[in-house]
Amino acid sequence: MRNIQLVIEYEGTAYCGWQIQPNGVAIQEVLIRAIEKITSEKIKLIGSGRTDAGVHAYGQSANFLTKSAIETEKFPMAINSKLPRDIRIVGAYEQSHEFHSRYSAKGKVYEYRILNDPYGSALDRNRVWHVKPHLDRTAIIKAMECLKGTHDFTTFSSIKSGSENKVRTICEYSLSTREDQIIMVVSGNGFLYNMVRIMTGTLVDVGLGKIDPDKISKLLKGKDRNLAGKTAPPQGLYLKKVIY
Amino acid sequence: MRNIQLVIEYEGTAYCGWQIQPNGVAIQEVLIRAIEKITSEKIKLIGSGRTDAGVHAYGQSANFLTKSAIETEKFPMAINSKLPRDIRIVGAYEQSHEFHSRYSAKGKVYEYRILNDPYGSALDRNRVWHVKPHLDRTAIIKAMECLKGTHDFTTFSSIKSGSENKVRTICEYSLSTREDQIIMVVSGNGFLYNMVRIMTGTLVDVGLGKIDPDKISKLLKGKDRNLAGKTAPPQGLYLKKVIY
Repeated sequence: MRNIQLVIEYEGTAYCGWQIQPNGVAIQEVLIRAIEKITSEKIKLIGSGRTDAGVHAYGQSANFLTKSAIETEKFPMAINSKLPRDIRIVGAYEQSHEFHSRYSAKGKVYEYRILNDPYGSALDRNRVWHVKPHLDRTAIIKAMECLKGTHDFTTFSSIKSGSENKVRTICEYSLSTREDQIIMVVSGNGFLYNMVRIMTGTLVDVGLGKIDPDKISKLLKGKDRNLAGKTAPPQGLYLKKVIY
Repeated sequence: MRNIQLVIEYEGTAYCGWQIQPNGVAIQEVLIRAIEKITSEKIKLIGSGRTDAGVHAYGQSANFLTKSAIETEKFPMAINSKLPRDIRIVGAYEQSHEFHSRYSAKGKVYEYRILNDPYGSALDRNRVWHVKPHLDRTAIIKAMECLKGTHDFTTFSSIKSGSENKVRTICEYSLSTREDQIIMVVSGNGFLYNMVRIMTGTLVDVGLGKIDPDKISKLLKGKDRNLAGKTAPPQGLYLKKVIY
């Protein structure tokens, strides 16, 4: 058996998310169907983690075991020929048997895009969070600095989060701008359920002057979801990369 | 009567183009319906020019005469509330009665995006031309230099072009790259029917080594559409700006 890792790009707009759900079409199941057509086997596809409905990926990672003799570098083209246009395989690698997309992951990089202008965007309507009032970028950067490092992120995770240990490390949190867009990139050793979206919602509150950036450390210490801002909508979020 | 100019962003994917057609929904008619709901008048909307089915715009320009007392700066929000999400008004200006979106235009700026990678993009599937073989950027830039200036562009226009005078001036033609994307920006005093798409198709042939960049001047002098490359597909093309 060979262990094949795929790197996957998708637009999440039309899907109920990565993971198979009772209602709606999941990205995982569309991929499984396409891979099974190519390999003529029943396969099990292990993703690095879920993404919610409407969330996008440039570099989701997943692996499957196969007896297929297809050359590794031919998998992307072959699987892509069976996929809808909003899901693309953009890389394939043969890994050792120990490799597991979820358990082997050392970290992840997410990007969140905010359009900060009065009118919104026709072209990016499913790909940014449109925030009309002007955001104070300096205040946001100050708050990002406080989120960096190793903390208990209970305040910044959904109460539905299943993880017992809520301590995570954020290695980088940067802000850049492109015309009216604010692009936030965050990398860390792991993220709790909804953590990036809750951090983003809170950073927007900081940018609006509703939360003082100096209060972020206090919010972390409070370990209470209610202290943070609202959960930012899914369509601005991109899983950029899984680090192994 | 006031003369209101609108600046319009749209994703062209779902439309038959700017101009009203017997089949399909035109961007112009969707806009007229929305404006008439707001002003409660019959209005005539004059665009700066057509865009084809599937072509996008960041800065299409159009104007209409109105007796409405709505403040100019309130038009974008008001009209946007009546528009589908793939069309947005991003600016409104009161102009003199002489202003005409088409006849007053001094020039236009277009952008064409090519994705030059093996796999294509899920997120940008309706927004780039996917070209798999590697393109020689240096050769393309050399060819762009030859297209700059004042020439008869018969070779680079559709035989369906209605214009008698085919002489146009290209002021700028630049290439930049962003990851695997090649972004070409062209500005000029006017463009013939399909001119940007035919120039792009030809520049891609240059990048593939099928056309020698030194032959561009000869192609221009030939004044024959058959000498140029194929017409690039619509989804990579963006009307960025109309210059007045």
